[in-house]
Amino acid sequence: MKIKRSERLIDMTHYLLERPHDLVPLTYFAKRYGSAKSSISEDLAIVKHTFQERGIGIVETVPGVTGGARYIPYILKEEADEFINGMIDTLNSKNRFLPGGYIYMSDILGQPTLLNKIGRIIATQYLNKSIDAVLTVATRGVPLAEATASYLNVPLVIARHDSQITEGSTISVNYVSGFSKKVKKMTLSKRSLPEGANVLIIDDYLRGGGTIKGLESLINEFNCNLVGSSVFVEGTHTGQRKVEDYTSLLEMHIGEDEIKVTAGNYENRIFGIEE
Amino acid sequence: MKIKRSERLIDMTHYLLERPHDLVPLTYFAKRYGSAKSSISEDLAIVKHTFQERGIGIVETVPGVTGGARYIPYILKEEADEFINGMIDTLNSKNRFLPGGYIYMSDILGQPTLLNKIGRIIATQYLNKSIDAVLTVATRGVPLAEATASYLNVPLVIARHDSQITEGSTISVNYVSGFSKKVKKMTLSKRSLPEGANVLIIDDYLRGGGTIKGLESLINEFNCNLVGSSVFVEGTHTGQRKVEDYTSLLEMHIGEDEIKVTAGNYENRIFGIEE
Repeated sequence: MKIKRSERLIDMTHYLLERPHDLVPLTYFAKRYGSAKSSISEDLAIVKHTFQERGIGIVETVPGVTGGARYIPYILKEEADEFINGMIDTLNSKNRFLPGGYIYMSDILGQPTLLNKIGRIIATQYLNKSIDAVLTVATRGVPLAEATASYLNVPLVIARHDSQITEGSTISVNYVSGFSKKVKKMTLSKRSLPEGANVLIIDDYLRGGGTIKGLESLINEFNCNLVGSSVFVEGTHTGQRKVEDYTSLLEMHIGEDEIKVTAGNYENRIFGIEE
Repeated sequence: MKIKRSERLIDMTHYLLERPHDLVPLTYFAKRYGSAKSSISEDLAIVKHTFQERGIGIVETVPGVTGGARYIPYILKEEADEFINGMIDTLNSKNRFLPGGYIYMSDILGQPTLLNKIGRIIATQYLNKSIDAVLTVATRGVPLAEATASYLNVPLVIARHDSQITEGSTISVNYVSGFSKKVKKMTLSKRSLPEGANVLIIDDYLRGGGTIKGLESLINEFNCNLVGSSVFVEGTHTGQRKVEDYTSLLEMHIGEDEIKVTAGNYENRIFGIEE
């Protein structure tokens, strides 16, 4: 039985959404549905139009015999702004304040729909960059880093504070943690990053920048290239930051007896004309 | 301008896939596309048919004024088997063996497409169960637990070995780790699980079962209910396991000088008639 266009469009949408950045050959779809390539081309044009119209992402079509289609996720500025404003309201609620100038946000960093939105916003900045891996350090940044890696469809690599026997040979670096001012160590399996890889750093929180700096030295030790660093929240910091070049979605202003959350530098960094 | 059916089907597919288990009211779609409810019902019937035909998931339609549609992800046994067989081949390759009877698998647990497939397989077992949260312990199980939480669309909750000042009040339990036979501690923020929540435990690896047992006592301390425990790999264990009731996708047989990976108990537990 011949497969109807409506069925092809639904299945194609699911198939493309499941593998961001992967080039799916036209011939693959033609075989999957038993349809002529010309029909598939028409289908893809409709999918492309709708994805653009609805702010879902770009469907890049590559012409020719080896051609195909590739879905590149992004988010529109309006949708990102709306989401960030909602986050600001949520985080500014009084019952989130913890003693010592902290805000409870583990629940946010555990909600799949929020994580996916954050990941999609971060991925938008790098949609035209060549990225081979997303790097973070255990533990709190992991879900966020995974959501971002998922939209970029690249491996997630996790540095750890302890080194596990199940990781094989490792490389370690020392860094100064912003919270405790102590010298800490982070460790990464030698197998996890190939030489020359382009690496994006993701973390949940940046204060002094010590952790990001540590991840940067790890990237150097592996002879890899730093593409950028993005964090969910940056906190107030007195004195010089250890890193200057980063993107933040939110900013936390920690006062004497109150904390105020505002938008981070994402508007310029992700949607600005400067980038 | 009126929105065409083809555009509605593509956008609806994306919209439903983004929010598994959420009931989307018919009136929402009717308003979103400026279409009659009868047209939306027809659209949903086509989406439902295709999702079933292609093994994407169930689209449950709830009739009536307050009715709508809900996407429940699952995986077909054939697709799961094919994936698991591929994993078995990958993990049995010689260059993954590490000294001391371990297999390197951090790369697999970092690849978004593989993680999503594993998460979809695990979620299939619980598609008719009421689950309020997915619980894991830092670090290696986190990406896998997040992928599962994402398909179930419930919060991910991460117990930690260290307790952070940014978590507020916490509850801790002691447990005996299978690797080191040492007594360890795991800690969870009091805010992270409401009383009476139905909790699914996810971890990457089970040997003696000490970690899962620890997570179970944490669930008890929070007055929550254990729905089930699923792991990616179970390893050979001599003597009595601390937990008996778990699902594993793979099994690792650790011999004198070789390791052999085979299928875990998932076939019966997820697709079997016993469940």
